[in-house]
Amino acid sequence: MSLFLRVVTLEEAQRVAREIAPAPVEEEIPLGEAFNRVLARDAAAREDIPGFARSTVDGYAVLAADTTGAGEAIPAILRMAGELAMGSSPSKSLHPGEGMYVPTGAMLPAGADAAVMIEYAETIGEEVLVKRPVAPGENVILRGEDFRKGATVLPRGRRISSRDAGILAAAGFGRVPVYRKPVIGILSTGNELVPVPETPGPGQVRDANGPMCAAFVEEAGCTPLSYGIVRDEAGALSAALERAIRECDAVLLSGGSSKDVRDLVAAAIAEKGEVIVHGISVAPGKPTIVGRAVGKPVIGLPGHPASAYVILHVLGRPLFSAMSGYYPAERKATVVLAENIPSQKGRTEFVRVRVREGKAYPCFGKSGLLNTFADSDGMIRVPAEWEGYEAGETVEVTLW
Amino acid sequence: MSLFLRVVTLEEAQRVAREIAPAPVEEEIPLGEAFNRVLARDAAAREDIPGFARSTVDGYAVLAADTTGAGEAIPAILRMAGELAMGSSPSKSLHPGEGMYVPTGAMLPAGADAAVMIEYAETIGEEVLVKRPVAPGENVILRGEDFRKGATVLPRGRRISSRDAGILAAAGFGRVPVYRKPVIGILSTGNELVPVPETPGPGQVRDANGPMCAAFVEEAGCTPLSYGIVRDEAGALSAALERAIRECDAVLLSGGSSKDVRDLVAAAIAEKGEVIVHGISVAPGKPTIVGRAVGKPVIGLPGHPASAYVILHVLGRPLFSAMSGYYPAERKATVVLAENIPSQKGRTEFVRVRVREGKAYPCFGKSGLLNTFADSDGMIRVPAEWEGYEAGETVEVTLW
Repeated sequence: MSLFLRVVTLEEAQRVAREIAPAPVEEEIPLGEAFNRVLARDAAAREDIPGFARSTVDGYAVLAADTTGAGEAIPAILRMAGELAMGSSPSKSLHPGEGMYVPTGAMLPAGADAAVMIEYAETIGEEVLVKRPVAPGENVILRGEDFRKGATVLPRGRRISSRDAGILAAAGFGRVPVYRKPVIGILSTGNELVPVPETPGPGQVRDANGPMCAAFVEEAGCTPLSYGIVRDEAGALSAALERAIRECDAVLLSGGSSKDVRDLVAAAIAEKGEVIVHGISVAPGKPTIVGRAVGKPVIGLPGHPASAYVILHVLGRPLFSAMSGYYPAERKATVVLAENIPSQKGRTEFVRVRVREGKAYPCFGKSGLLNTFADSDGMIRVPAEWEGYEAGETVEVTLW
Repeated sequence: MSLFLRVVTLEEAQRVAREIAPAPVEEEIPLGEAFNRVLARDAAAREDIPGFARSTVDGYAVLAADTTGAGEAIPAILRMAGELAMGSSPSKSLHPGEGMYVPTGAMLPAGADAAVMIEYAETIGEEVLVKRPVAPGENVILRGEDFRKGATVLPRGRRISSRDAGILAAAGFGRVPVYRKPVIGILSTGNELVPVPETPGPGQVRDANGPMCAAFVEEAGCTPLSYGIVRDEAGALSAALERAIRECDAVLLSGGSSKDVRDLVAAAIAEKGEVIVHGISVAPGKPTIVGRAVGKPVIGLPGHPASAYVILHVLGRPLFSAMSGYYPAERKATVVLAENIPSQKGRTEFVRVRVREGKAYPCFGKSGLLNTFADSDGMIRVPAEWEGYEAGETVEVTLW
């Protein structure tokens, strides 16, 4: 049990977060609920698609050889042998010298190997006049031409988009194997906190971290479960953590802006497991805690929402990705820095910036303010071994 | 009542879609449900934030003037006047010559105007030795310094991110004014269609459009309501459309790959209102229908999923945005074209492409295939007045 401050690099803390993450679990859900979920297996076509040769035009099913040399002046003359219907198997075969009316998407009869567009044909009595030749396979999709049975249509790990939902439907996935969404418990600690709907009294502030963490967890493809506000008191903290850890797959504890409270949080985690990281050489967010309680991951976030948000991005995200199988692409912008960013060597620094017309403006200001957070569009990472960036340099912004 | 084919430009069809969209409606929901919803009003701080002067450090609340000239060698010596607690109003004021212990985030007592970090102070018995001077306001956030009462913290029309949830919480929004999510009814027509869980028989295919449209509607910030598959028969179509239009804010009808069926769909819409657009000079997607039934928007999509998807993007999206207040930023990539794209003048063409290492490869292939759709990463728009693009040109891809 390592309870006391053990400051590690951000990279080490991220490694720990990934290491303690339980592996994602597979479940099967109806396709109608699968939007934005993550495929747990390669999705393979259940059978040949289409399962039969079909026309891609409104026109006439023919034997291509019967149309050789056909033209406006001297059309090929075929015997009209009936109409094909959507959704059913043709009741008879097509014989040489015959044509059958076929609507777009309908199944071709045996014997036909092409379709003539209606624009290039004419029916006169019992005859079909074809005014343009077609090649074998023309205006037709062959059986299995779209997907062969067993062919992978979407890869494992893919987050299902609307396009993907259409492809899964075509491939026969009425139910879809996806990763279960991990449930993340959210606890806010702090005697100064009141629930958002209440008006804070003197010395009190609203619990901004709770709703922010819950929304972040949703954004990260997990399910948040909120446990509200816990008082800064060992017994209350321990009881709340115990309940959350029992009901969830991991817990986010936020708050503890003062050292005393952070120690209480660390002690509550240590009591049920171990504190692995207590302090990260990162700004903001140094007092972050990473540990395990009853074998499940627990992150103790800094108390200030703007700091907590940075840690959610750089540490929460790798944990949630490892648990959920969902690895969202970070939204990045490459921009020119409008002002110098000085930084202290030996720690990774994240500086909030506003982005306007390809330029990044650092949001400096007193620590502890939310307004610079509200104004910002993203953050710039200054690596631990650097002393900052200079105005005019090209930098990469991670957008919120 | 204009029922018969009236081909318009894509721009005209988009104008119609926006024009027939009912305006978004405001509702109030709990903050915990507001993630990804769209703010219906500017969100303004309910009161000064913070509501009191608070320390941003663990240390001592002081009168800055008392620390003038303090240093390691000759510290300022203050009388220890007690400890301040989180979440409550100080029980007494600070007098000149006094210091009080203050944890990060706690309320300063009247009389104090700065805080000294604990690292630069020491307590010896009843005295606090301050070893570094502080300026008035140092390490302190003043009342209202974050947000003044009434200040806009987030603008109307903004989709609420996790960061925004934290800011709304801080600003006192236990309930949030958002736009109601429009309900979009989804109907698939086609005698050849079977529900996705079924194995298609000869001539049959699975209903890919239904699940795809439902997921697209979710992606667009609306709520899908699925009505399954309707047979290509006037009475069935009319009854299904009547029910969907009564229960939803708009209806997406897909299918009708053959001309006969498209005419049935147009007739069903016309019976309850009007067909405004029947045919758009766009490829794919020419046979699209836009109309109104019982005053509500109806879009008749082409039957093929890959074509329907393009129309969802270019026509569904403007309709859903106008109804929901949600205007998602399209994901774009600027890339170099790897092959020529020929295009027919007089119609807007959308060509599916794969994007690999900054190059776009057109997914040519037979019309009606899904595999090129499954392979593609997005589409390139060729304007109606152009004859295509040449290999080597820089083009913009709208990513799926």
